[in-house]
Amino acid sequence: MKVENIQLYYLSMPEILDEADGSQDALVVKVEAGGYEGWGECEASPLTSISNFICPKSHSAANPIRSSIVGENINDLSDIKKIITRVKNRSLMIAQTPHTFSGIEVALLDLLSKKESCPIYSLLGMNKTIPKIAYASVLFGKTPQETYNIAKNLINKNFKAIKFGWENFGLNIKTDENHLVAARDAIKNEAELMIDVGAIWETNIDEAEKRKKILQDAKITWLEEPFYSDAFYEYSKLSEITKLPLAGGESCHSIESAKNMIRYGKVKFIQIDAGIAGGIIAGKEICDFAEKNNVQYVNHTFTSHLQLSSSLQPYVSSTKSKFAEFPQQLKSLAWDLTENHISMDEDGFINVPEDVGHGIKINQSALDQYIVDVEIFVNKKKIF
Amino acid sequence: MKVENIQLYYLSMPEILDEADGSQDALVVKVEAGGYEGWGECEASPLTSISNFICPKSHSAANPIRSSIVGENINDLSDIKKIITRVKNRSLMIAQTPHTFSGIEVALLDLLSKKESCPIYSLLGMNKTIPKIAYASVLFGKTPQETYNIAKNLINKNFKAIKFGWENFGLNIKTDENHLVAARDAIKNEAELMIDVGAIWETNIDEAEKRKKILQDAKITWLEEPFYSDAFYEYSKLSEITKLPLAGGESCHSIESAKNMIRYGKVKFIQIDAGIAGGIIAGKEICDFAEKNNVQYVNHTFTSHLQLSSSLQPYVSSTKSKFAEFPQQLKSLAWDLTENHISMDEDGFINVPEDVGHGIKINQSALDQYIVDVEIFVNKKKIF
Repeated sequence: MKVENIQLYYLSMPEILDEADGSQDALVVKVEAGGYEGWGECEASPLTSISNFICPKSHSAANPIRSSIVGENINDLSDIKKIITRVKNRSLMIAQTPHTFSGIEVALLDLLSKKESCPIYSLLGMNKTIPKIAYASVLFGKTPQETYNIAKNLINKNFKAIKFGWENFGLNIKTDENHLVAARDAIKNEAELMIDVGAIWETNIDEAEKRKKILQDAKITWLEEPFYSDAFYEYSKLSEITKLPLAGGESCHSIESAKNMIRYGKVKFIQIDAGIAGGIIAGKEICDFAEKNNVQYVNHTFTSHLQLSSSLQPYVSSTKSKFAEFPQQLKSLAWDLTENHISMDEDGFINVPEDVGHGIKINQSALDQYIVDVEIFVNKKKIF
Repeated sequence: MKVENIQLYYLSMPEILDEADGSQDALVVKVEAGGYEGWGECEASPLTSISNFICPKSHSAANPIRSSIVGENINDLSDIKKIITRVKNRSLMIAQTPHTFSGIEVALLDLLSKKESCPIYSLLGMNKTIPKIAYASVLFGKTPQETYNIAKNLINKNFKAIKFGWENFGLNIKTDENHLVAARDAIKNEAELMIDVGAIWETNIDEAEKRKKILQDAKITWLEEPFYSDAFYEYSKLSEITKLPLAGGESCHSIESAKNMIRYGKVKFIQIDAGIAGGIIAGKEICDFAEKNNVQYVNHTFTSHLQLSSSLQPYVSSTKSKFAEFPQQLKSLAWDLTENHISMDEDGFINVPEDVGHGIKINQSALDQYIVDVEIFVNKKKIF
């Protein structure tokens, strides 16, 4: 069979707030071939990726992604791998390409798995699923007291790991310390504590190093994204100076960039988003490389459970990589997008669905409810 | 004064051919502030970057680029640096951002230089301009004989360095050898010979290593882009195994990624496109870092002379970095875009214009002749 059609759905909350929450909009992909449907989600600026998908060609290494996929064979895994190489080489000079293609790759795998009546992970040669310790992924409170309350509430829900992230942290050491003390006070020794600072220190090693003691005192499991995602030198220096275990990788947009993060950035946890890194097959190769280098693979997910299942697929069989990001503050769009959801068991573990494909069913009415209407004309001709 | 307006012009040849030539379309930027105009060019898929410029916000790290610049102060260089940081942080999660912003940065510098009545390089603290050895940047011929003829013709035009690139090379060792022998036969010892393989070997070190002898025999000055741009490990291995001087960096989209190419990829020539890497200020920082590490900085340019002048600005004063890419097979669009051009002297050197700004004047009639009409509607509202 051949890929017959690819449809992109730009979904959005009615209002986009100026906060780090990535679940406020979505770019969902449907592919069709041989009577089957596959679904995936890109982690991307939707309009930018739509243009990347249908843009007029610039030259032989800057083609619209659509042109490399529609009409191609999709009978087995090797066909998908051919499409991956074809897209990479034909759109190499458009930086947005991995963001746009990743969701399509997931949809292609979902479709092929449906034809084969198996889960995606089986298609990739994995036979068992091992539950992961779910870490609640939440933003710091506006005040340390609020951070305390959030942590307490999550502990009461049986979480065995909590990650505070992004906002209200990194600009003032005293405030940072208060947040960390509040978080650790709330969770005591009942759970792991991770901290995500969202590249707040850019490339400034000193600013990061100043937090060495307060982060050590809080007994964090990892410090995530102290610097810009390609600041490998700074990552490795901070790791060397502080001995803090570092995590990063959500912006890795290729297998090579993730390997660089491991080889040169010296992270101990590599966090891969199936909607950015190139898809699930890319994730699997990164996971194998990571574990060979004594680095744990972790999903990166801050959107829907479609994306959550996709990002869990590459390491479902791993016994070495123990944690899974489990977003806890999704906007209604990201929740409503799917009919079923992944839930945490009473011991604080989550697992991928064992159904065919990624096992997540799209809620068609959410597509209607949140759809953003986009029309693009080039020289008066409608191309989207 | 404040940035009042930014206008993007998508230009294209009537027909885009399936060849590696990047001069077939263009994305040109005009900025306006305080009665001044500045011009720049992005090296980008035009429609993808237009969308990146005006897309609806996704979250606090995925904003449209326009929103970070229009209305901001532009009174001195520190204001431009503030804008650079603001754009980076507010659009960090849109991978296309550096492609789109780079041309805007050039336009902002051009504008500010016009206010100060000085060249851009002076604004950045450089006081003299040192001519560079122009290397003719051309594609391999379809046959070794054609490659010979192209080289001979360039030698007759006084070129002291010739780079063959991209097409018709890398897939068959015997053919590759014939091309290399033909090129060296034609130029004898009268000129340097560089080879650009456009990532043809992806991440396959063996395929590259097989060409060790034929490349050594051809006495090449550098081998460019043997692998994908982020395959630092493979670059460093090839350098170690073959001792061939490697070049790369045209896809570097940040200061950090260029430093990685130098630190970890072990290139001897770092090739930076002002229309991709973040602009001229980014180029200057990369150049300083490169030369401290005994690496030569080289412009990457395969489009107009607006882009050529922009990409030369970061290293005009350098005595260590000796070469400059001088594209020789531009499509009419890229030539017609500017009223004036940079020409090579009889000794084979080129230099930046010493006029204010980048010294290149836009040909308004080319904007009309090659313009592509783009309209984008989001929920029926025209946003471009």
